[in-house]
Amino acid sequence: MYKIEQIDSGVVAPSGFFADGVSAGLKSDNQLDLGFIRSEKPSTIGAVFTTNRMTASPIKKFRKDGVVETDFILVNSKNANAMTGEAGVSDIEDIFGELESSYKLHNPVMSSTGVIGVRLPKDKIIAGAKSFNLNSRNSDSFSRAIMTTDSYPKEIAFRVTLKSGESFSIGGVAKGAGMINPSMATMLAFITTDAKLSNSEIDNLLQSEVRTTFNAISVDGDTSTNDSVFLLANGESGLSGDSEAFREALQRVMKHLALQIVSDGEGAKKLVSFHITGAGSDSDAEKVAKKLGDSLLVKTALFGEDPNWGRIASTVGTAGVDCSEEKLSIAYEDVIVYDKGENLFSDEVENRAYQVMKKDRFTINCDLGIGTGEFKSYACDLGYEYVKINADYRT
Amino acid sequence: MYKIEQIDSGVVAPSGFFADGVSAGLKSDNQLDLGFIRSEKPSTIGAVFTTNRMTASPIKKFRKDGVVETDFILVNSKNANAMTGEAGVSDIEDIFGELESSYKLHNPVMSSTGVIGVRLPKDKIIAGAKSFNLNSRNSDSFSRAIMTTDSYPKEIAFRVTLKSGESFSIGGVAKGAGMINPSMATMLAFITTDAKLSNSEIDNLLQSEVRTTFNAISVDGDTSTNDSVFLLANGESGLSGDSEAFREALQRVMKHLALQIVSDGEGAKKLVSFHITGAGSDSDAEKVAKKLGDSLLVKTALFGEDPNWGRIASTVGTAGVDCSEEKLSIAYEDVIVYDKGENLFSDEVENRAYQVMKKDRFTINCDLGIGTGEFKSYACDLGYEYVKINADYRT
Repeated sequence: MYKIEQIDSGVVAPSGFFADGVSAGLKSDNQLDLGFIRSEKPSTIGAVFTTNRMTASPIKKFRKDGVVETDFILVNSKNANAMTGEAGVSDIEDIFGELESSYKLHNPVMSSTGVIGVRLPKDKIIAGAKSFNLNSRNSDSFSRAIMTTDSYPKEIAFRVTLKSGESFSIGGVAKGAGMINPSMATMLAFITTDAKLSNSEIDNLLQSEVRTTFNAISVDGDTSTNDSVFLLANGESGLSGDSEAFREALQRVMKHLALQIVSDGEGAKKLVSFHITGAGSDSDAEKVAKKLGDSLLVKTALFGEDPNWGRIASTVGTAGVDCSEEKLSIAYEDVIVYDKGENLFSDEVENRAYQVMKKDRFTINCDLGIGTGEFKSYACDLGYEYVKINADYRT
Repeated sequence: MYKIEQIDSGVVAPSGFFADGVSAGLKSDNQLDLGFIRSEKPSTIGAVFTTNRMTASPIKKFRKDGVVETDFILVNSKNANAMTGEAGVSDIEDIFGELESSYKLHNPVMSSTGVIGVRLPKDKIIAGAKSFNLNSRNSDSFSRAIMTTDSYPKEIAFRVTLKSGESFSIGGVAKGAGMINPSMATMLAFITTDAKLSNSEIDNLLQSEVRTTFNAISVDGDTSTNDSVFLLANGESGLSGDSEAFREALQRVMKHLALQIVSDGEGAKKLVSFHITGAGSDSDAEKVAKKLGDSLLVKTALFGEDPNWGRIASTVGTAGVDCSEEKLSIAYEDVIVYDKGENLFSDEVENRAYQVMKKDRFTINCDLGIGTGEFKSYACDLGYEYVKINADYRT
């Protein structure tokens, strides 16, 4: 019916989009730290934001303005512009006011990541933004400019070709490398498409697809002050995004970026899926999957490559959902270690489970044996590097 | 009205109690690993247990028997007897059955801590228990026998002298050293008193005092499969425990043991209180205090001695309670760093906050500026040692 193929160029893969990053002196050593995405024609825009009550200023401003259409997103790293009060919002207005002399912008939007509680260095940002080449198509520089503790840039794009031969594209860039996944280590994602979508279509799509992607690597509803996922649609392809093809492509973009974030967990070496089945409901399965992905004891056991299924079982028991030791089964990939009350550990089984845990990517399967509820979460291991990065981060 | 003074001897401080520990070969190197508390006359007993659905066998057995009175508690380390099914419960029955030939026991109770999913080494435990000197009064050996990753034994006792000159005593022993506080690193506590209490008085007292003590170092309702707090009252003093004096003494015992557990957090160097005031309710304050105590980013900042108040603010924002950046204030001890929307950080203030964080014990104060709700939680820092201990624990 339709074909989805991966293509290059991240957020500038869809026609009509431009992006780049510059060094504005926010990071040291002339690293890229300020970027933009520009849409030739105004795009419809929608977003999902953090549930943190201490919402950052750029999100306050977006909501205050009720932005539904824009042609410009400005993104800085090193400063979250959070806990900065009304001044934080007017700083954004000042920046865009200054840029008016250089650029004609339609409802420009700002997004920030970095340290909390410090006012934006407006002058540096204004000077940096004035040095943008607005006709550049450099998604890689944009993705590097928004990195904080990320160890690599994260981008992806797909072209979707319909049976008619017509095609549209969708591309995305994200930053984030939190171990306890978006939790406070800000996660930002920017997705562009040349398909045509209304504002409410965008909001509905993001709300529904975020659950199994960006929110499947999150836990506890813990989110940073700045977490944001934006989707811009400029309609240049002439094709509607209200289709199964678009939804699938969007899901692939979001899943890819989400897994890149968790793989880039601070100091992490492993990407582990917790696949919960047999729960009383999908929501129960989600609670268990996220509880496992959040458990320090589980994450350190992943780091230690220790097939310590007792920690898995105990964590399942704390998720607050219907479960029992007589019905639970646990497997490392296909190596069943505990089956409905029976401990299957032997030296041989333990060794096979250990071989699974030595891999960089694997799945831990838990069947609760109760219903048909299912969910998959994603986590990384937690090792010494995490402590090092986070003990030293601010200074 | 009454006088409370600290005395020696832990759980054997109250008259009529005996305790000791032996090496039963569960731990290596002839370390103490099996202990008992004995009451000359049967004591009334009550307990609060884990909320984990995967309840360990000793707790199942206690509930199944509906124990309200006992003269003997047997405690082993190295094996949790959890996720062991019905066999785990009958193993306990077998052990006490074998001991009948040596000792006359009245409703004996067992408590366990250690690895999950492995059957108890019954023969070792039986042989070890048969070597007990039931007339020993060695609370220290008992407290060492129940240690797992604890780096020191935890015990305390108080004598309470009433205006009349009469007195009763209360003593306690605990084990636990979890960083994410009881969470899965089992917390066991055994409290004895020669005051007289009914079963329901014990249950009510434990339920009400656990909230600000053992549960103030816990988080998220995460508890291990084995967490238990027992209180035994033998009435030997002839005085009632239904008094303000008893409640205060019990609270002091529980608070002391709880703080010893958090101070012994795996690899921890600091004991930090999060004192939340001005919340909409005590329950809101509790949520915020526990969220802070649970945050990896906050704990690693404590380890790094970084007065990174942005992480505090952001964590407050995720607690799911009414709060706003315009009303929040944050202080390290008396050093106010953020006050109702205003960032008070200067080099001097930052340095003063840093001096606070260099201490081994300090309080971080957060006033939400909304109501009169208050709660205090306790946490330790999280450093490299935590990862090392937990990556290597089982093997």
